[in-house]
Parts: sequence; structure tokens; C-alpha cells
Amino acid sequence: MRSAIAESRPAFVPVDPDYEARVRASFARQGAMRLLGARLLMLEPGFCAIELPYREDLTQQHGYIHAGIVSAIADSAGGYAGFSLFPADASVLTVEYKLNLIAPAAGELLIAEAQVVKPGRTLAITRGEVYGVAGDKRTLCAIMQQTLIVLSGKADA
Amino acid sequence: MRSAIAESRPAFVPVDPDYEARVRASFARQGAMRLLGARLLMLEPGFCAIELPYREDLTQQHGYIHAGIVSAIADSAGGYAGFSLFPADASVLTVEYKLNLIAPAAGELLIAEAQVVKPGRTLAITRGEVYGVAGDKRTLCAIMQQTLIVLSGKADA
Amino acid sequence: MRSAIAESRPAFVPVDPDYEARVRASFARQGAMRLLGARLLMLEPGFCAIELPYREDLTQQHGYIHAGIVSAIADSAGGYAGFSLFPADASVLTVEYKLNLIAPAAGELLIAEAQVVKPGRTLAITRGEVYGVAGDKRTLCAIMQQTLIVLSGKADA
Amino acid sequence: MRSAIAESRPAFVPVDPDYEARVRASFARQGAMRLLGARLLMLEPGFCAIELPYREDLTQQHGYIHAGIVSAIADSAGGYAGFSLFPADASVLTVEYKLNLIAPAAGELLIAEAQVVKPGRTLAITRGEVYGVAGDKRTLCAIMQQTLIVLSGKADA
Repeated sequence: MRSAIAESRPAFVPVDPDYEARVRASFARQGAMRLLGARLLMLEPGFCAIELPYREDLTQQHGYIHAGIVSAIADSAGGYAGFSLFPADASVLTVEYKLNLIAPAAGELLIAEAQVVKPGRTLAITRGEVYGVAGDKRTLCAIMQQTLIVLSGKADA
Repeated sequence: MRSAIAESRPAFVPVDPDYEARVRASFARQGAMRLLGARLLMLEPGFCAIELPYREDLTQQHGYIHAGIVSAIADSAGGYAGFSLFPADASVLTVEYKLNLIAPAAGELLIAEAQVVKPGRTLAITRGEVYGVAGDKRTLCAIMQQTLIVLSGKADA
Repeated sequence: MRSAIAESRPAFVPVDPDYEARVRASFARQGAMRLLGARLLMLEPGFCAIELPYREDLTQQHGYIHAGIVSAIADSAGGYAGFSLFPADASVLTVEYKLNLIAPAAGELLIAEAQVVKPGRTLAITRGEVYGVAGDKRTLCAIMQQTLIVLSGKADA
Repeated sequence: MRSAIAESRPAFVPVDPDYEARVRASFARQGAMRLLGARLLMLEPGFCAIELPYREDLTQQHGYIHAGIVSAIADSAGGYAGFSLFPADASVLTVEYKLNLIAPAAGELLIAEAQVVKPGRTLAITRGEVYGVAGDKRTLCAIMQQTLIVLSGKADA
């Protein structure tokens, strides 16, 4: 169920061995992820996947998941992909991202996957994809390109 | 309280005189706007503003409004700015957008404003801004650039 | 020398069997590619690579290739990746693109690769990468996400 | 001939009183601007305009100015708008930008205008427009949103 792009991702070595606990604690503090019903599905150094079950209160006017909600899980996936590679005393903020919506965000659930393309001391660049999952069929519905900033010396919590 | 960019916007003549009813009905069908507590604040041909009161369940890990939620109201504002100029028998879909987050999305409420830069028969291009409002202070916290597609012959509902 | 992302690309079947002649004729008409010294390096259905040897008159103020020149070959690569899948009587125009510059565009030459992520009757979405090549070392220096429009019934020349 | 957006721009106070000499010297080092025939048209703190006369060797396959060339002057205009506000010992690099092409880039010359939306110690955000000028008619042909990085302690030359 992993995408070709995700499978080809480079192996990153996290500078903080406890990166997973740090990411999970930060994710748990995102009120918006809780409100939407999003769940951290997979985490590896430089990679993050987030799952969002379909709900009617997440939709736009045609009954598909709203572009903003799609981008919320894509943005969080990218942010935590990057954050997993940050030092323990740094926070992450999104500088910007761009999202192309290429198919209706439909299905039983959405999965947003993001990976770091370029880590850095000040900025990190990620790419992401969002898939709609219906039964065993997975449809690419959005792609993202994102810039993160490393806030050094500002631990996340 | 209107931004300089909004004030300088061109005057568009809607092809559908009932554009306002059409936009309001479509907005009312967006389950996501209801979930977030967003409200249609202002609508003119080619211009739309959406208001979002601050709530803790809309936040990222530092207590600011989540980038995805910021983009949800920016995307809807842009979409309805464009949709206001569409013919009565057409729907709107977001092709893509890009959002720069330039200050923490904080304050008592956010206001997303978007205006059409270029209307068209197939595509429409918009620009948007999101402001955080605290008392009588208004801080620009995000800017957006967006592409919409006109789905002709597919009325919105 | 092919990137992981390029290697994982899907197999597209072109609707126009003469797509290669059509792309090469169109590329040859791009005065800008000739001025820059860019060359069509590889073409497959939904994929295009363009090569640009380093020259001092292509630089920004620090001696690296100018971001606009980087984007020129990325944009053309994306455009022709998409155009290879178009019907014979259609033209291509770029709707928009976004480029992240992630390392200085240096080396003996640049290679821009782009592939179609989503073909379509009206729009096509591509992703691209630009590499700097120095000896046998290849450094990723830019990534792109692009939207193209299919101008049906308007043959390219 | 100034756009509505340009006219509404905020007044910035440059930290380096010699910003103009610094920008002009940097612009003069951009080999790419010379190759294209681009000229620095106007410079104010946080604002820059660049002019590009039409030439056949700047075109894409339909005879309009190539999107990459359009983006080259838009990117330089944004970069120097930002750079005008930087301290004397800092350089500028483009992190990313996004360009929407909304009309064919035609006319006797193009003018790219960009202004700083948000200055900062690490990043600066700009918006830009590119106009095609034919006689006394000015047509908006592209809009840009851009992120710059301030390289402190690395003077530009």
C-alpha cells in the first residue's frame, strides 16, 4: 500500500534518537488533528503518514473532503516528516506549501504521506501525496510541495 | 478593516444576477465550514471574505490555528470569489493553491479575504490574504495564490 | 543517472503515435531554449529531460545558474512531458508552476527531468527535478510542481 | 503605469542607506539579466521593477515570451525588492516561488514588479506581477508569490 515515491525515499539518520516520542507528543497537541479525526499512521526518519477516515462534516459542497482538510493532513505529514530529523531542542513551522488537487478526495479514508526531499539546518523541503482509499483501491488525489523552518533552541513543548 | 489589496480590486459584473443566493447555498453545503465554525462574512462579485472565530480544537502544536485550517478558509474564500462570477449552471473546483504562512495565526478570529485576479471560461485565478484579528488590530498571517476550474454544465447542487 | 522518482514513473500510452516528432518540432521553435543552449535529452510518453550546459551568461549574482533559467528548463521539461500525451491537434500552455531551489544550481551542466503525475483532457499535472552534474556526481538542486492546460483543436504549429 | 497593488504598498525603511548601490551592483553581476536584455527600471525600499524588451530569442513555441524568462524577471524583481531591505552584510537567495501565467506574455516589452509583503531577519516574502506593454496598454500576464532567505554575514560580492 506504499506509493512508489515513498518506496524510493532516501534513508535519513535522525540526530535525535527519541524523535518518535517527540513527534507523537507534538502530534497529540494538535487540536485540529483531533477535531478532524486524523491519526498518525506511520513514522520513520524523514517520513510520515497520516490517516483520516471519511466523515460528512469534513466535506466541501459536492460531498468530497474539503481541499483545506486534505491540506491539513498533508501539511501535518510534511511537518512531522521534517520534524523527525530536527534536533531535540528545535520546533517546526510551515513556511509555505503548494497543493495540487488531482482527483476528488473520496473513499473510506484518506492517507497523506510526506517525505523530506532536503533536510537542512534552517529550512527543510518535503513532498507529499494524499490518497483516497476505497476497499483495496488507492487513488492519488493530491500532491504537495512544502517548505519548513527549523526554530532552533525552541523546544516544541 | 478592509485590506489595501481588497480595496484596489477591479469591479466585476457577474453573469448570474443571482450569484449571491447560489454562493450562499453552496457554502451552506460545506460540512467542513460548519465543523470549523466558519461564516461567510462578505460577498461581492469576484470577492469573498470568510470569518473563523478562534477555538482550541483548531490549533497546531503551539496553540495557533493549524495551517490546514487557515488554508481551508482561504481556499473557500477564493473558491467563492471565483464562483460568484461563474454562470448559473457551472460548478467550481480548486485546481491548486499555494499558501505562505507569514505570521502565527492567532487572535480572537481569523478573516480570509480573496479576490479574483483573472476570471475565465475554463480557469479562474485568485489571490487571498488571511488576517488574525485581536481587538482592533489586524495582522496579516497568510497569503495565497489559487487556480480554480469552471465545471460548465454541472450546476453546483 | 536516472533519479529514483523518474525510475518509478508510470507507463503512459500516447494517443498520438507521432508524439516524438511533434514534441521535437515544438521544442525547436522555442527561441528561448536555443538562446540558453538547452537541448532535449530524453523523451518518453509522459517524461522529458532537458540538458543545459553551464555558461557564465546564465548566472545570478553569485555565479550559479539563475533561478529563472533553472525554471525555464524545468518548465519546458514539464510542458513537453505533458505534451507527449496530448492528441495531435492540441497545444500546451503552462497554467502555473512552483519551484523550490534546494541547492545552488552549479556544475558543468544542469539536467531537468519532469514526468506527468496526472494526465487529463483539460489539465495535466507534472512534477520535475533539476540536477547539477559535476563529473559523475549529480546533485538535486530544484524541485517543481506544475499545471498544464490542453488547448484542444489548436495544433501547436 | 503603476499597478493598483504596487500603489498600495507599505512604506519600508531600509536598514542600509546605501541599498540602491548595493542592489544595482548585484543586478549588474547577473549574467542572465544581461543575456536576456533585462534592465532595472525602478527601485524603492521593498519594491523593484524590471523591464524586458521583446525579442524573438526569448520565446516559447507560439512566439510569446517563455514562462521561464517571465519567471526570471519576476524572480529577480522579487529578490531585489527583498534585498533592498537587507543589512549591508547579507546576501539573498530565492527559496521558492510560484508563478501563475494568466495571459500570453506578449507586447513590446514586459515589466515585472515585485514588492515585499513581509520582511524578516531570516525569510522575506514577496508578491509580484508581470505586465505585457503594447503602446499605452498594459496587460497583466503573470502573478508570483515568492520566499527569499537572508544569508547573514555573507555580503553579496
